[in-house]
Amino acid sequence: MADAPANDRELVITRLIDAAPDKLYRAWTQPELIKQWFAPKPYSTPLVESDVRPGGASLIVMRSPDGNEFPNRGVFLEVVENRKLVFTDAFVSAWEPSEKPFMTGIITFEPEGGKTRYTARLCHWSAADREAHEKMGFHQGWGICTDQLAALVATL
Amino acid sequence: MADAPANDRELVITRLIDAAPDKLYRAWTQPELIKQWFAPKPYSTPLVESDVRPGGASLIVMRSPDGNEFPNRGVFLEVVENRKLVFTDAFVSAWEPSEKPFMTGIITFEPEGGKTRYTARLCHWSAADREAHEKMGFHQGWGICTDQLAALVATL
Repeated sequence: MADAPANDRELVITRLIDAAPDKLYRAWTQPELIKQWFAPKPYSTPLVESDVRPGGASLIVMRSPDGNEFPNRGVFLEVVENRKLVFTDAFVSAWEPSEKPFMTGIITFEPEGGKTRYTARLCHWSAADREAHEKMGFHQGWGICTDQLAALVATL
Repeated sequence: MADAPANDRELVITRLIDAAPDKLYRAWTQPELIKQWFAPKPYSTPLVESDVRPGGASLIVMRSPDGNEFPNRGVFLEVVENRKLVFTDAFVSAWEPSEKPFMTGIITFEPEGGKTRYTARLCHWSAADREAHEKMGFHQGWGICTDQLAALVATL
């Protein structure tokens, strides 16, 4: 199954979305679009800097309703236009190790019957980190964000 | 200074080697050449598999004089022909996290006065891992291997 984790360190979310792959790719790579769906509302995404190329750095800041900010830093490992993005928080820039390698994200956009099979696969360095991510609300949070993403690409 | 670590998580070795950058690059990327210098003698390097491209996997097995084998697995993050190689043990293949992200290596080959400024920069995820690597004999081991590398490229 496309949504089955390959092992106990992975979390996967997949959805068939009624939009072409290039629209989903744009929503994942253009800062002004990322700001519109990346954080589960009422959280917001006030800052996005994204250098979309292997070795390019990315900074996405999420803000809670009470004003706390949560910066997400990472580096792209692989970029296939309109098809695939791979990034990791193991580096803060090419190739400076981060404080803690927590996960690597593999995002794919595959054509499927005129729609797009959208899959986000999050690979953690340990089962404990996968479990922590799950307890932080991964499924609900990414579920809401995927709803927001699908609603956004419907308008593009 | 070229050989000064940027922080307490780095180890650096640098040497001016009397050979062109492309010879050093070949010695770092061709399995039959890697086998000749990679392990400090009397250790040997019986097996080398190296898919030299971003995302490509590498496996280098070192063998001690008493027959113990030490496999080194990693993935290339950046490849600039004849100039730069970046690899990490944080992944065992693209993009499966390893058991433990220990270090990322940045190897550069820069032309300098008809010779090559060869620099190996090893970036660890923690100061404790850098210290452990140092105590494992990093400076002596890499020093011997760099001698072996310089001797090999003189014959190419």
